[in-house]
Amino acid sequence: MRTFEEYRQMTEEALLPALSSLGDIPPLLLEAMEYSLKAGGKRIRPVLLTAACEMAGGSAGDAREFACALEMIHTYSLIHDDLPAMDNDDLRRGRPTNHKVYGEDMAILAGDGLLNAAAELMLRSAAETGDLRRVKAAEIILRHAGVTGMIAGQTEDITSEGKTPREETVRRIHEHKTSELLEAAVEAGLALGGAGEKEISAGHEYALHLGLAFQMTDDLLDVTGDTSQLGKHPGKDQEQHKMTWIALRGVEGTAEDARKEVRAACEALEQLPWDTAFFSDFAESLLGRNM
Amino acid sequence: MRTFEEYRQMTEEALLPALSSLGDIPPLLLEAMEYSLKAGGKRIRPVLLTAACEMAGGSAGDAREFACALEMIHTYSLIHDDLPAMDNDDLRRGRPTNHKVYGEDMAILAGDGLLNAAAELMLRSAAETGDLRRVKAAEIILRHAGVTGMIAGQTEDITSEGKTPREETVRRIHEHKTSELLEAAVEAGLALGGAGEKEISAGHEYALHLGLAFQMTDDLLDVTGDTSQLGKHPGKDQEQHKMTWIALRGVEGTAEDARKEVRAACEALEQLPWDTAFFSDFAESLLGRNM
Repeated sequence: MRTFEEYRQMTEEALLPALSSLGDIPPLLLEAMEYSLKAGGKRIRPVLLTAACEMAGGSAGDAREFACALEMIHTYSLIHDDLPAMDNDDLRRGRPTNHKVYGEDMAILAGDGLLNAAAELMLRSAAETGDLRRVKAAEIILRHAGVTGMIAGQTEDITSEGKTPREETVRRIHEHKTSELLEAAVEAGLALGGAGEKEISAGHEYALHLGLAFQMTDDLLDVTGDTSQLGKHPGKDQEQHKMTWIALRGVEGTAEDARKEVRAACEALEQLPWDTAFFSDFAESLLGRNM
Repeated sequence: MRTFEEYRQMTEEALLPALSSLGDIPPLLLEAMEYSLKAGGKRIRPVLLTAACEMAGGSAGDAREFACALEMIHTYSLIHDDLPAMDNDDLRRGRPTNHKVYGEDMAILAGDGLLNAAAELMLRSAAETGDLRRVKAAEIILRHAGVTGMIAGQTEDITSEGKTPREETVRRIHEHKTSELLEAAVEAGLALGGAGEKEISAGHEYALHLGLAFQMTDDLLDVTGDTSQLGKHPGKDQEQHKMTWIALRGVEGTAEDARKEVRAACEALEQLPWDTAFFSDFAESLLGRNM
């Protein structure tokens, strides 16, 4: 297995060429999409997808378009989330948000464009190769990103604002908003590598708990971090009365729950027949974020 | 072949069940998506897709998910187009636009949801059947809808506002904004029915000219129609200094060009080995809209 940094670097190198490979894109649209794609982040989803594909016996090349597609989906969701009508954020990863630079109209189109480009890349790769594992991986990614997955989470986030947090609701929102794209990463990676249903199901369990741990440590950072660490204004979630884990369980309780979720994620890995150290290391690294 | 009305009816019946079949969608999101899906329209794209599939030897059942997916893509593009940051329209097909009823945040998510649902439906159908014609059809649809297709047209529409109309620019915008989804319909339908590259290429030619004729007659309606006929306020395009064919060629010139494009569309059909009366009749019917 490679290191996280090696996988991250592979994603960085593949991302913009993958977008441009789609053909003749109007310059302003391309620039707006690239602006947010280049904004960095840790590329967790494409890294996990590529690592899962290699772990299951596939090659990083098999995973390339799907890793890029997944990062495009993540990026479009951030662009639309930041819009004035949504979370109304001016900063993202320490830079002005897409609509602050390109205007709301172009930010809406850049988001639409990235989602469509993601699906198009996966379909082109499936159509060119006739490889049904790619069809399955694309189906997995679009399902988790969609109206029963990530977009469901964004809706629940909006409709729950201002309400009293209940554990069931907060958990469901976090599962949808955060776990779904991690499940997409691990499950699609395994499918591309040729894994069977049992392994994909274990990968799902891992990513579900990983996502909850990730969101919990993110909520902790929102109250304990500063702008330079966060790349956004801290305390924003609290101001907007979002359904955070902190509001429900406090700082100590959230830290404890995050440790539980990391353990559950690592336990799920035991059902896999491969060396899963990359994935357990990553889950445990979340606890080092600020705890 | 069936009649246009029969194909339209099949689409009406399939559309909402197709969306719900994706699973557990949050009620408000589902309601917002269904609101715009139910808003009617002539269902031209799914009708053409299904008719093309049957013409090439496929069944209407082979086309069902793809016809629904294409109408979902068309619908999402209208929801996002109507947003205050885009065209800022209050009325669409005689009813309040999506964001007027559900708010801008839900309208953005409803649009995102419909695009993702469209891709998901096609992928699910391809994954379940393992049918590579479905993979190809999905690739065709997403390509025409994407950043080199319809979304490119929306970008060009925005960036050209207020500029002096030039024939080349107006033609390119119309091709992207209108012809692309008609090309998606005819090409994907033919691919699903098992047609080869030569037939798909002729279908492309037909739909390209059909789209231009459609946009020209639409521009004519915008200056000569009334609100009840249009389902929106007439003269809107003029007010926004959009790149219309009228601005370039005047009312008489536009009517003449529309007739030319219909002829070109019908000529493209002559390369096809089947009875193409359905498609030539449809192209000619555009000229009856208001001329």
